[in-house]
Amino acid sequence: MKPIKVGLLGLGTVGTGVVRIVEGSQQDVLSQTGASLEIAKILVQDKSKARSIAVTSDKLTENAWDVIENPEIDIVVEVMGGIDLAKKYILESLERGKHIVTANKDLMALHGPEILAKASEKGCDVLYEASVAGGIPIIRALVEGLSSDRITKIMGIVNGTTNYIMTKMSQEGAAYDDVLKEAQDLGYAEADPTSDVEGFDAARKMTILGRLGFHANVDLSDVSVRGISQVTKEDIAYGKRLGYEVKLLGIAESQDDHISISVQPTMVKQSHPLASVNGVFNAVYVYGEAVGETMFYGPGAGELPTATSIVADLVAVVRNLKLGINGRRGFAPYKEKKLKSDEQISSKNFILLHVEDKAGVLAQITQVFAEHEVSLESVLQHPNKTNPKAEIIIITHDANQAAMKKVLKQFDAMDVVHSIKSVYRVEG
Amino acid sequence: MKPIKVGLLGLGTVGTGVVRIVEGSQQDVLSQTGASLEIAKILVQDKSKARSIAVTSDKLTENAWDVIENPEIDIVVEVMGGIDLAKKYILESLERGKHIVTANKDLMALHGPEILAKASEKGCDVLYEASVAGGIPIIRALVEGLSSDRITKIMGIVNGTTNYIMTKMSQEGAAYDDVLKEAQDLGYAEADPTSDVEGFDAARKMTILGRLGFHANVDLSDVSVRGISQVTKEDIAYGKRLGYEVKLLGIAESQDDHISISVQPTMVKQSHPLASVNGVFNAVYVYGEAVGETMFYGPGAGELPTATSIVADLVAVVRNLKLGINGRRGFAPYKEKKLKSDEQISSKNFILLHVEDKAGVLAQITQVFAEHEVSLESVLQHPNKTNPKAEIIIITHDANQAAMKKVLKQFDAMDVVHSIKSVYRVEG
Repeated sequence: MKPIKVGLLGLGTVGTGVVRIVEGSQQDVLSQTGASLEIAKILVQDKSKARSIAVTSDKLTENAWDVIENPEIDIVVEVMGGIDLAKKYILESLERGKHIVTANKDLMALHGPEILAKASEKGCDVLYEASVAGGIPIIRALVEGLSSDRITKIMGIVNGTTNYIMTKMSQEGAAYDDVLKEAQDLGYAEADPTSDVEGFDAARKMTILGRLGFHANVDLSDVSVRGISQVTKEDIAYGKRLGYEVKLLGIAESQDDHISISVQPTMVKQSHPLASVNGVFNAVYVYGEAVGETMFYGPGAGELPTATSIVADLVAVVRNLKLGINGRRGFAPYKEKKLKSDEQISSKNFILLHVEDKAGVLAQITQVFAEHEVSLESVLQHPNKTNPKAEIIIITHDANQAAMKKVLKQFDAMDVVHSIKSVYRVEG
Repeated sequence: MKPIKVGLLGLGTVGTGVVRIVEGSQQDVLSQTGASLEIAKILVQDKSKARSIAVTSDKLTENAWDVIENPEIDIVVEVMGGIDLAKKYILESLERGKHIVTANKDLMALHGPEILAKASEKGCDVLYEASVAGGIPIIRALVEGLSSDRITKIMGIVNGTTNYIMTKMSQEGAAYDDVLKEAQDLGYAEADPTSDVEGFDAARKMTILGRLGFHANVDLSDVSVRGISQVTKEDIAYGKRLGYEVKLLGIAESQDDHISISVQPTMVKQSHPLASVNGVFNAVYVYGEAVGETMFYGPGAGELPTATSIVADLVAVVRNLKLGINGRRGFAPYKEKKLKSDEQISSKNFILLHVEDKAGVLAQITQVFAEHEVSLESVLQHPNKTNPKAEIIIITHDANQAAMKKVLKQFDAMDVVHSIKSVYRVEG
């Protein structure tokens, strides 16, 4: 069989990894699929740029159409990033019957349904394992491994940059700004870190996981997002003393076919496996009605881990080519999307208040919770003796979000409450 | 489309779970595959036995051939366990063109290659995700998710009973016999626990994982096995003080296409994710050249978790039926099996010696290591002040097994060494 020809859109970090792995694993791919892969054409921005891998210059092009319109190319791997141009190239490639492998979470989160519909129309594969949690085969786990189960909850540490920052803040008692600066120096955070630290990157990945886990066409705008830039070292220290680590978690839940998806810094009980996922590692915790708890852990980014997922997708496309079933193993959402109301979203909560230091204040505070039928798991007053302010930390039992909003609004209006310093969801 | 009919061989714990999940997820299976599943016939030992699920008596049979020779049945699910009879029924079912889903690790470890060859000949699927680590989709992860990578090491906690025992011994400082008794009372261990505690069950699972990870026809007899029955609470206490937890690990390694597979109690560094896998949970750590470290965690046994994997395999068979590709996605080993020699197997080691308490003994001991070119990471003498014997704990750097055997043989012959109390491999 002739080698199956692959066109690459982009030759940055991940694209370079794809070339390395395809070249290094030719014999394995051939043994596993009966066909070999050849990277035939690569779109780059500047042909003359020096590169860390040897590619003959006739394979490089600065013109995307040399890939898209190339009749020899069977599979297009999109690793250029960005949205509009990547979307155009992918749709045009599909139009020409080419299969797609992409690592583009932004694109799949925003335009996944449109791209998958086009692929289905054209009988083409679109695989995107690398778009969520780099080297962890979480999409396969959801779509195939747990296909017989009803997923009720997905909790993910799906952004390595923020997990690095939270880990460092926790381990060293350091302040957010200092650790962010260090992460930037090390190349773990971008010069403009907004997309990572404000939770937008995680929200895109949770959109994709929510669609696959709950079989409904979740939109990025359905995800409520809060980042880590307001997390203080005091919050982390209080959390630790009470047995929690603060992690930026994506949380997708489904009950009675009503779903909610959020990204937020969360107090995770130290005994929960997600609490010890440290540094740039990612992990996705999946709860299924039948299977119970499973967790998938691994590198969330990086040249070779991400490229591993891309090449695994390439191998899957090649297997489908050999079987003649491309475009027929798609997993289209079959459930109507119904979002939970605030009344239906519930969790434990951690609340840190600064209050007036006089008799009766604690009674007033707890009375507000009682009025809104929020019951309390624990209340700590003056937990920090070195701090002269009167501080109260409250951990609630499960409380719905509507009630919590009313409680916080009432605190905001009370003279004895000087400030609501922090509010976190609690898990584990 | 007519429902796809399934025959069940066995209606014990896992079989009951399969019936429950198939009945509870009809709509999901239909939406995902375009076909529904019907459990048409169930082989039981005693039709009159009371059961926790409602099955009409016409579906039950005490005659296996009512399933095997039933022309209406497309898929046979084998959850009866045992080896000879299960093998016969599976081969006879394949002979009649029926697809197989099995949770039978013993059978797949011993006769997997023969069964898969027959399946390939007959164009049938044989899927066995549930045979390793219950609800964790580890077989899919190895065969598909990491298909593009070269796996170099698999470390697994793949036996829940022994992990429960090791966890209890560690957390409560309890003795092996007491915890085993408790596990038996709770139903976590069999009345005859040999298969679990001596590592045979784990060895079967590692045989299966080794085949899939290294693409070679590993035999059960290739696995070197040592169980946990000789692990003492003192060993665990010393391990903890040095920062290790003792776990029964299956370890499969491949370098330069030479492989080794073992099951043995191992000192795992507390910072390693496997060290905090507790109780009856399972986890499989996979190292790939490109992906780096990944871990898959979840319930290793139980009615519904195991049944989840079986029904996911059923869904996969149904998808293949719809696509007309059954028996064509097999993953046959394509590498010649080459086993490592003792010289090629290396690891760190933990050694506890009881020695004569006089000057110069430590020098004699360390001299033995030096003679065999084993270098030491740390040496602790008298680590336990309450113990009057002279005890020495040594942790080596990476040392090959041949050298280690020579060292231990020499200790055995030395008058100043009263006994070699414990030797453990060290990981993490």
